[in-house]
Amino acid sequence: MVRLLGIDPGLRFTGWGLLEADGNRLRHIADGVIATDGEASVPQRLKALHDALAAMMTELRPDEAAVEETYVNRNGTATLKLGYARGVALLAPALLGIPVSEYGAMAVKQAVVGTGAAAKEQVQMMVRRLLPGATIKRADAADALAVAICHAHHRASRNRWAAGTRMA
Amino acid sequence: MVRLLGIDPGLRFTGWGLLEADGNRLRHIADGVIATDGEASVPQRLKALHDALAAMMTELRPDEAAVEETYVNRNGTATLKLGYARGVALLAPALLGIPVSEYGAMAVKQAVVGTGAAAKEQVQMMVRRLLPGATIKRADAADALAVAICHAHHRASRNRWAAGTRMA
Repeated sequence: MVRLLGIDPGLRFTGWGLLEADGNRLRHIADGVIATDGEASVPQRLKALHDALAAMMTELRPDEAAVEETYVNRNGTATLKLGYARGVALLAPALLGIPVSEYGAMAVKQAVVGTGAAAKEQVQMMVRRLLPGATIKRADAADALAVAICHAHHRASRNRWAAGTRMA
Repeated sequence: MVRLLGIDPGLRFTGWGLLEADGNRLRHIADGVIATDGEASVPQRLKALHDALAAMMTELRPDEAAVEETYVNRNGTATLKLGYARGVALLAPALLGIPVSEYGAMAVKQAVVGTGAAAKEQVQMMVRRLLPGATIKRADAADALAVAICHAHHRASRNRWAAGTRMA
């Protein structure tokens, strides 16, 4: 049984979601959205994001983390700002010794919906269906849980494969 | 007398340079380049960058830090990776309570060479001229020192202006 944390980073809003995975069985533990003050300086916003992620991980103790490698087709400044937030999202678990994986948007959609061409709304609907009983209010948190589900599927396949090769 | 740290961030190489500023007088204290292992995962590289910056700042105790807001006209993936490194460069001083300023490339050139249209080589030559006695081997470190010089000039102007308004 492992606790898997998904993070959907952004400078304004960062969604996170924590699952417990027991083989293929998934259980929703917690989720949330970290907002930073748009009036504050970028370094202060990054510190606020880091501190909130670190406090949450210290309390909820994920074993592994996964971050979505969203592709953005926006201007350079917007991409750079997303990069700041994603840099902090990749760093914060690493500073606590938690392994971090990255998944592309297509891999996340494939794992959750079964096709890499799924719409954003389909992903969020499937997350709610795969985690019955959980009330996930915010879209950013649902997106983060989708990354955690993707990581759960990939590590389960890796473990099956590893078990197979050990027996071979 | 204040110690000013300039940082020129990159995922592969991050230059840094430390000055002591006494009004308009500048003295070179130290500089260096932090390299991360291209074979390691991105989270591990960001952790290595953070840890090296934190160790350097803990030892050399800058009072203020400045990071160059380089404009990049490259593809989205390259911009995102630069964003990761810059996010860590902005976060690391903030985590230690060191105020961080950002300067655009034009502002740095203007402060060091006197024109925002200066070539990269001119900036590096002027850095060496403004800091006589220092042997700055690496271009990345010279670029970082240019950001520190830019910050020294801007904060000196701010202080003059503040002093003027106090007397008015």
